[in-house]
Amino acid sequence: MSNEYRGKKAMITGGLGFIGSNLAHRLVELGAEVLIVDSLIPDHGGNLFNIEGIADQLRVNIADVRDRNGMDYLVRGQEYIFNLAGQVSHMDSMRDPYTDLEINCRSQLSLLEACRYNNPTVKIVYASTRQIYGTPDYLPVDERHLVHPTDVNGINKMAGEWYHILYSNVYGVRATSLRLTNTYGPRQLVKHSRQGFIGWFIRLAVDGEEISVYGDGKQLRDLNHVDDVVEAFLLAGASNAVNGEVFNLGGTRPVSLLEIVDTLIDLCPEASYRLVPFPEDKKRIDIGDYYGDYSKIETTLGWKPQVSLRDGLGDAIEFYRQNKEHYWE
Amino acid sequence: MSNEYRGKKAMITGGLGFIGSNLAHRLVELGAEVLIVDSLIPDHGGNLFNIEGIADQLRVNIADVRDRNGMDYLVRGQEYIFNLAGQVSHMDSMRDPYTDLEINCRSQLSLLEACRYNNPTVKIVYASTRQIYGTPDYLPVDERHLVHPTDVNGINKMAGEWYHILYSNVYGVRATSLRLTNTYGPRQLVKHSRQGFIGWFIRLAVDGEEISVYGDGKQLRDLNHVDDVVEAFLLAGASNAVNGEVFNLGGTRPVSLLEIVDTLIDLCPEASYRLVPFPEDKKRIDIGDYYGDYSKIETTLGWKPQVSLRDGLGDAIEFYRQNKEHYWE
Repeated sequence: MSNEYRGKKAMITGGLGFIGSNLAHRLVELGAEVLIVDSLIPDHGGNLFNIEGIADQLRVNIADVRDRNGMDYLVRGQEYIFNLAGQVSHMDSMRDPYTDLEINCRSQLSLLEACRYNNPTVKIVYASTRQIYGTPDYLPVDERHLVHPTDVNGINKMAGEWYHILYSNVYGVRATSLRLTNTYGPRQLVKHSRQGFIGWFIRLAVDGEEISVYGDGKQLRDLNHVDDVVEAFLLAGASNAVNGEVFNLGGTRPVSLLEIVDTLIDLCPEASYRLVPFPEDKKRIDIGDYYGDYSKIETTLGWKPQVSLRDGLGDAIEFYRQNKEHYWE
Repeated sequence: MSNEYRGKKAMITGGLGFIGSNLAHRLVELGAEVLIVDSLIPDHGGNLFNIEGIADQLRVNIADVRDRNGMDYLVRGQEYIFNLAGQVSHMDSMRDPYTDLEINCRSQLSLLEACRYNNPTVKIVYASTRQIYGTPDYLPVDERHLVHPTDVNGINKMAGEWYHILYSNVYGVRATSLRLTNTYGPRQLVKHSRQGFIGWFIRLAVDGEEISVYGDGKQLRDLNHVDDVVEAFLLAGASNAVNGEVFNLGGTRPVSLLEIVDTLIDLCPEASYRLVPFPEDKKRIDIGDYYGDYSKIETTLGWKPQVSLRDGLGDAIEFYRQNKEHYWE
């Protein structure tokens, strides 16, 4: 890996966002020529502070992936595209399904068509989501599990994933899709709670506030620290054995919401928690317990999560304590 | 069934098209108050001659399902919506994925949002497709088969289906999705060959021309005469046991392309056939053999295909012989 990316051109869509910017930091470290493409749509996660420290070692191009003409130009000459641009809020997708469609479907077609006609030899790694499985039929969920998403965001992300697989199979635009589970760590959007519970819980813990846990708090999830996710993107980008394939990521072990909260309170003793009933609109798209089987990517690429929950949360808390003003409002 | 639809308001999107218009004929016969909504997009299958004989017993509203304001008005008061509007050409979807996205995804959201806010008690039956399974992992294909579409049309139809299931589960807008296989019969678009091989073969047979069969002609398919498909829509519309569910349709038995062509030549002895190599663009999205398992809908609704291949093709040939001028150009 240490040589794979040296001097190579790598584009990151959504590169000012949470996972994209962490990936940018790592790629710069590995000596890649990084181009970040980000639309900086308010509230979506793009944050210029996310590239603090590496801003002069990469290029940033503010553009919307929906803009086909822009993409036609930007994809040229790239050897890798890490495709992380997306609308990630489940709740927002239910309120405004059209915008979610534009960003999670039209944008993906626009990027892929740009590659089909202007850079068919590029390698793409797409950020998909475990959300497309919906409520699990069995646990842990492997890639043979039927997809039956429970929200508009899940449906559109599923279509976005399939465009990638299709363009890989039909046009040879090599693409791999990673189905991410709950990811957390430095540089996450924590201004509001609509992009998932984990970043929001971390923020409340750092502030020493009370954390509201829906239901009985026994719901199981698997979490990945962002460093582990970045590693999966780099491994997938470097391999031709994974073209046209989808892979689950997954946590070191399933953990309950209460265990997450307990660990946070242990690290931030001023914080506390309280069980509250599930709000109706959230309950309707809740999926119950979820944890994934990541043995396919482990077998194929040797990936497995390395960061423990406690170490990972500690790292995130430390980062936000130092950089609070750039993430709180 | 004979009383279920009497005096009831039933809207058919794509109602001037092939299956929609056959459904309209049957609903008028059953005494329903039919509203056809169709955009008459050239080359998509809408044909005013399709309602010849019933035009004064129903209402036609020319509108695009993508038009949310129009839909907000049109869905009001409807008791059933048979949702058949769609772009159905696999080849067109590969040439222009954006239009396919607009018609097969945005339109569906627009119709469903209109129902969510203006008619949440309506019952919807959606026309999905076996295309979403892609190349089968096993035969016959049942509803537990993984979906992995091989073209943009299949991906977008899959998303369209899932929006329906989602709105049924989350908002109580009752919806059922039928995964249609190759359908043929009167009132099909046969002006060009881009909407599937079967209508095109029938046209060539009626004209006594030579039919080009790709490959060795041994590919298996299951075919449904449109009367059987119409029956499935009516049964699904009349049942609350199928809300939020998807069902395969399927033919009486798998048949090879050569058997179809032989039957056509038997019925139209002037016609002939010839084996030709697969064109590259078609080969890339071809799915090999396909036939479906329809036991789920048989068990739940008592549906099974009734029309034999020979009777069905005979019926179609007779119809086009009499009405050639309205379908040939």
